Amino acid sequence: MRRSFGSDNHAGVHPAVFDALRRVNDGDVPAYGHDAYTVGVARKVAALFGKKAEAFFVFNGTAANVISIRAVCRPHQGIICAETAHINTDECGAPEWNAGVKLLPVPTPDGKLTPALVERRLGGRGDEHRTQPRLVSISQATEVGTVYTPNELKELSASCHAHGLLLHMDGARLSNAASTLGVSIGEAAAGTDLVSFGGTKNGLMAGEAVIVNDPALATELLFLRKQSMQLSSKMRYLAAQFDAFLTDDLWLANARHANAMAQLLSKGIVRFPGFELAWPTQANGVFVRMPADLVEPLQKEYFFYLWDETVPIARLMCHFNTAEEDVRGFLAVVDRLSGARTVR
Amino acid sequence: MRRSFGSDNHAGVHPAVFDALRRVNDGDVPAYGHDAYTVGVARKVAALFGKKAEAFFVFNGTAANVISIRAVCRPHQGIICAETAHINTDECGAPEWNAGVKLLPVPTPDGKLTPALVERRLGGRGDEHRTQPRLVSISQATEVGTVYTPNELKELSASCHAHGLLLHMDGARLSNAASTLGVSIGEAAAGTDLVSFGGTKNGLMAGEAVIVNDPALATELLFLRKQSMQLSSKMRYLAAQFDAFLTDDLWLANARHANAMAQLLSKGIVRFPGFELAWPTQANGVFVRMPADLVEPLQKEYFFYLWDETVPIARLMCHFNTAEEDVRGFLAVVDRLSGARTVR
Amino acid sequence: MRRSFGSDNHAGVHPAVFDALRRVNDGDVPAYGHDAYTVGVARKVAALFGKKAEAFFVFNGTAANVISIRAVCRPHQGIICAETAHINTDECGAPEWNAGVKLLPVPTPDGKLTPALVERRLGGRGDEHRTQPRLVSISQATEVGTVYTPNELKELSASCHAHGLLLHMDGARLSNAASTLGVSIGEAAAGTDLVSFGGTKNGLMAGEAVIVNDPALATELLFLRKQSMQLSSKMRYLAAQFDAFLTDDLWLANARHANAMAQLLSKGIVRFPGFELAWPTQANGVFVRMPADLVEPLQKEYFFYLWDETVPIARLMCHFNTAEEDVRGFLAVVDRLSGARTVR
Amino acid sequence: MRRSFGSDNHAGVHPAVFDALRRVNDGDVPAYGHDAYTVGVARKVAALFGKKAEAFFVFNGTAANVISIRAVCRPHQGIICAETAHINTDECGAPEWNAGVKLLPVPTPDGKLTPALVERRLGGRGDEHRTQPRLVSISQATEVGTVYTPNELKELSASCHAHGLLLHMDGARLSNAASTLGVSIGEAAAGTDLVSFGGTKNGLMAGEAVIVNDPALATELLFLRKQSMQLSSKMRYLAAQFDAFLTDDLWLANARHANAMAQLLSKGIVRFPGFELAWPTQANGVFVRMPADLVEPLQKEYFFYLWDETVPIARLMCHFNTAEEDVRGFLAVVDRLSGARTVR
Repeated sequence: MRRSFGSDNHAGVHPAVFDALRRVNDGDVPAYGHDAYTVGVARKVAALFGKKAEAFFVFNGTAANVISIRAVCRPHQGIICAETAHINTDECGAPEWNAGVKLLPVPTPDGKLTPALVERRLGGRGDEHRTQPRLVSISQATEVGTVYTPNELKELSASCHAHGLLLHMDGARLSNAASTLGVSIGEAAAGTDLVSFGGTKNGLMAGEAVIVNDPALATELLFLRKQSMQLSSKMRYLAAQFDAFLTDDLWLANARHANAMAQLLSKGIVRFPGFELAWPTQANGVFVRMPADLVEPLQKEYFFYLWDETVPIARLMCHFNTAEEDVRGFLAVVDRLSGARTVR
Repeated sequence: MRRSFGSDNHAGVHPAVFDALRRVNDGDVPAYGHDAYTVGVARKVAALFGKKAEAFFVFNGTAANVISIRAVCRPHQGIICAETAHINTDECGAPEWNAGVKLLPVPTPDGKLTPALVERRLGGRGDEHRTQPRLVSISQATEVGTVYTPNELKELSASCHAHGLLLHMDGARLSNAASTLGVSIGEAAAGTDLVSFGGTKNGLMAGEAVIVNDPALATELLFLRKQSMQLSSKMRYLAAQFDAFLTDDLWLANARHANAMAQLLSKGIVRFPGFELAWPTQANGVFVRMPADLVEPLQKEYFFYLWDETVPIARLMCHFNTAEEDVRGFLAVVDRLSGARTVR
Repeated sequence: MRRSFGSDNHAGVHPAVFDALRRVNDGDVPAYGHDAYTVGVARKVAALFGKKAEAFFVFNGTAANVISIRAVCRPHQGIICAETAHINTDECGAPEWNAGVKLLPVPTPDGKLTPALVERRLGGRGDEHRTQPRLVSISQATEVGTVYTPNELKELSASCHAHGLLLHMDGARLSNAASTLGVSIGEAAAGTDLVSFGGTKNGLMAGEAVIVNDPALATELLFLRKQSMQLSSKMRYLAAQFDAFLTDDLWLANARHANAMAQLLSKGIVRFPGFELAWPTQANGVFVRMPADLVEPLQKEYFFYLWDETVPIARLMCHFNTAEEDVRGFLAVVDRLSGARTVR
Repeated sequence: MRRSFGSDNHAGVHPAVFDALRRVNDGDVPAYGHDAYTVGVARKVAALFGKKAEAFFVFNGTAANVISIRAVCRPHQGIICAETAHINTDECGAPEWNAGVKLLPVPTPDGKLTPALVERRLGGRGDEHRTQPRLVSISQATEVGTVYTPNELKELSASCHAHGLLLHMDGARLSNAASTLGVSIGEAAAGTDLVSFGGTKNGLMAGEAVIVNDPALATELLFLRKQSMQLSSKMRYLAAQFDAFLTDDLWLANARHANAMAQLLSKGIVRFPGFELAWPTQANGVFVRMPADLVEPLQKEYFFYLWDETVPIARLMCHFNTAEEDVRGFLAVVDRLSGARTVR
């Protein structure tokens, strides 16, 4: 079967995850995360982010984002985010519906917020007619495959805190960013107050964690998670996924591989006429402008989405299980189609 | 390790479920349930309930209940339920928060609603100051271990429909009820419009399904599931759990065993002085009045919850993996403690 | 035209209110309550309740209740109230919908909560599956026409605070209660943290105030009022109503009159066979068990509602504009109908 | 006292409104709009919009907008509106909070949506990850003082309906638009499905109406109004305001005057150097680019807001009570300040 470049969640589950699931299957344990094993794994996950951090397992990324928001925002408050943010474009209005908040999206050149971009949405503070900005939410890596450097994060964080704002990171692909940067998970999330730490897109079955760096922000988390329908009764199976994720740095091995495949693809594809990167390939996604007439024939052979249909820009995602031969196969098809095209 | 009688979700996962999970792990497939395998399994699950029924997988029972409610209730509408209903007592206000509705609970003698009990809450229809009843929600088996007969269901359903109400079933333990009744899943849910069909409490890892018997009620379900943060990206792993559940009637084997263990426990325990069933044992839970002075010593040896601390009434849950020796061991402890007590 | 005993809001507006409205009609002023006049009146209203209190005008009582709730409750929290509470029975689920909270109603003998009744609903604190009680809401006067004494309030308040609960008062008829008790508005609301201070039922056109006794609870009020659609642009006309209300103690004169009419009615009606008070007449409502066969003929001559159709119990409300002749006329009809009945 | 150009709600109440309020003050009537007078006035208001239309009085414009939205949108649906729309910028997130929906704002050159602009936000229909557009909301007159012609409305309406979208009009200044166009209220709202018909900004005290042109969309309105805390108990006083509004076309006289004052101001101000209209003056607001150094001295003498602080653009609102001498006085100050400036 040919691999999909459609999404990193088109992949299956890493075998080590199955082993971990099996290992925790013996006997009866308390439900809802009150078993010693889950408590221990949660502590290990939290420790990636800081000494005071706490981790709460949930089922998926939308939930991690929404629960992070609910933890710190009241409904008259707002969230500054990039227009391309997953919370803004791909969650069917879950943040608005579940937290009551208003999103305050900002157009960005590369999916990344900066202090200057954030400041654009700070008007009307103290004015009761206006949504009050409370949280800045960024994605690491971004939805267009770019990565914040630790320095960029620290600057943004400092600016947020100076403005009385908290900083949330949608880290669905935080592993990929850390791998790119060659830093720890914690450093790749430097300066954040809350993180949605993703596992599903990097080889887990269905497992994400809400990370709260300051326990003062976490006092209501248990209730919010339950009320948000994200409390797993047999929690040990969420914990086991993260246990596998951290063991022997599986997160890093998986991310490094996915990123490497994206580099191979990125470097290969720009050699064809009419193919040009829309944004630099910094994580596991390749965003490439391509000849419009090649979209359909190429999609017939490999599954992928268009990020922007008008240009068009293709979004090509690699994952932990993408094989080098998948990439080379894809490039071969591009080559064939491009060649045919040139002739005509 | 000694088994817990604390909850059916203290159990682990049935081995056949792991096998099914492994089997679907090959290759890349479309995410979010749009793969052929998930579509097929969903159809099989739906078919248990009726020819026109549709099934939507979600992560847990609270979500199945809330999404069922959201599918058919507007926020000025209300839900008539037993005071003991899970949606009323154990979901941290999730129905109110997520669907905006008001619950209209009714005290019941045995956890079961009847047409007469429902009619008590029908006042004020058409009056704009009053919550408008729209849905009746029942649990099968109930939270106190009783089971509706198909006839009771049909009568209740007919009454609901005559009053312009829809009927929802919280079927977290629907398998156990069907096993008790010796009928199919569909017959154990006869007359319902929506069902939260549970798997987690009967041997799955984390898998429930929202069943909508009339497709006209399901038109918004996909959006509501996503917005309610219950859309799994790697959906095949939810489907696989239900695949295992239906294969060779695993649901029935598991439920039958759990029920048999409950019968063994129930029949055994009432022989001790001061132990008396609070409600008949009709599914996998034993609710028993017990001497107050035995609670603590008994809990030291086996984990279980008190359903009612004032009487007290113990709730003893059996599950697919409860062993006969667990039950006998428990009864032996009761015997020992009772004997010691009699002596004193 | 004959007066209605249907509700205190069947009455019109006191002439002094019109005068006040006219008086503020000159010239342009800042909108949304930022004019000096509104600020001044709000201060006077707040001062009735305490030195640190703050007052926020809104349009109606449901809004005052909901905004009070939103000020202090998070959606996983709950509100303990009497089953008869207006927030529970007559607001079409507005608290649940707007604040996301769950109501935890308690049956009461006389519409009044006590520390013991509140304690009944305190189970499950700290348990993430349960709604967490945060607020106790009482009505003064109650929906069945009874009045809390200042001592009862202080005891209840002390108990609430000892349990970490806040105390809210639905004071739609607080004026009537204060008049009955012969105390100030503040004393009739002793021990509360938040009050919905009513005007509309006592001679205003449409004006209520949210009172927050501790400014720390009021920090978000301006935003919540706006977001709850209760920010009047031409706020001076809400302020003017309260200006009239306080001038020469109009609130007291109106309430005293309504209460006196209720006493006249109450004392008169119990002399007829089959008429018997359901609750003592302590404010401006008379709740009286009456012969079922007289309900219809009596309603043909005077408008009133049945509080309980099964007994039946009539609810007879008096207001600032109820005339003595209205009451005497009503009693005369009862006399006539009772006489006719006896003959038969 | 000098008039404010800050807002049309800085004005007081038209004397005819007081007369109408007084006239309905006699005697007791049923509450909550169930009195014959209110029913009659509501019918007259509705008739302005169409034979099948229905009208529901509410307290303010934010509420009229939110209730319109709640009537037709489910929480996974979205509202396409101009970026400048009141619902997007000035309601503290009330639509998101109260209706759960997501706004889909579009930048516009002149505050007006067109079929082409609407179509830009129609992507992702049927995709469960995306907010589903359901309603288009426009303002008449717009927030930047421009007016849709009946032809523009009809084209937009046809396009909306062809796309399965409903059309809502925020008609806070609909009277002004109708006056400008020289057409009836109904023609100025041609093609709409729902209208927030404003009165407060045109001489009423606090009165708006939700208009539903198709009764099928209004079936839940009574409940939604109550639950949204907008049901006035003494409804006759809302009705009376609209009674006055329609009597002798007070709405038109008021709007015509306000518009005329805006024309006088608009024509006068562009004669000064550095003053230039940002948008044509088509209703009662003048939006004018002005020299930055004159803002502060001018605001010292007359109150007005800056629409855009960066350019800057002043927003100068006229109202039913703006006097010609107010306008001339304002222009005289501009003259003086401009002269002083030229000299320097």
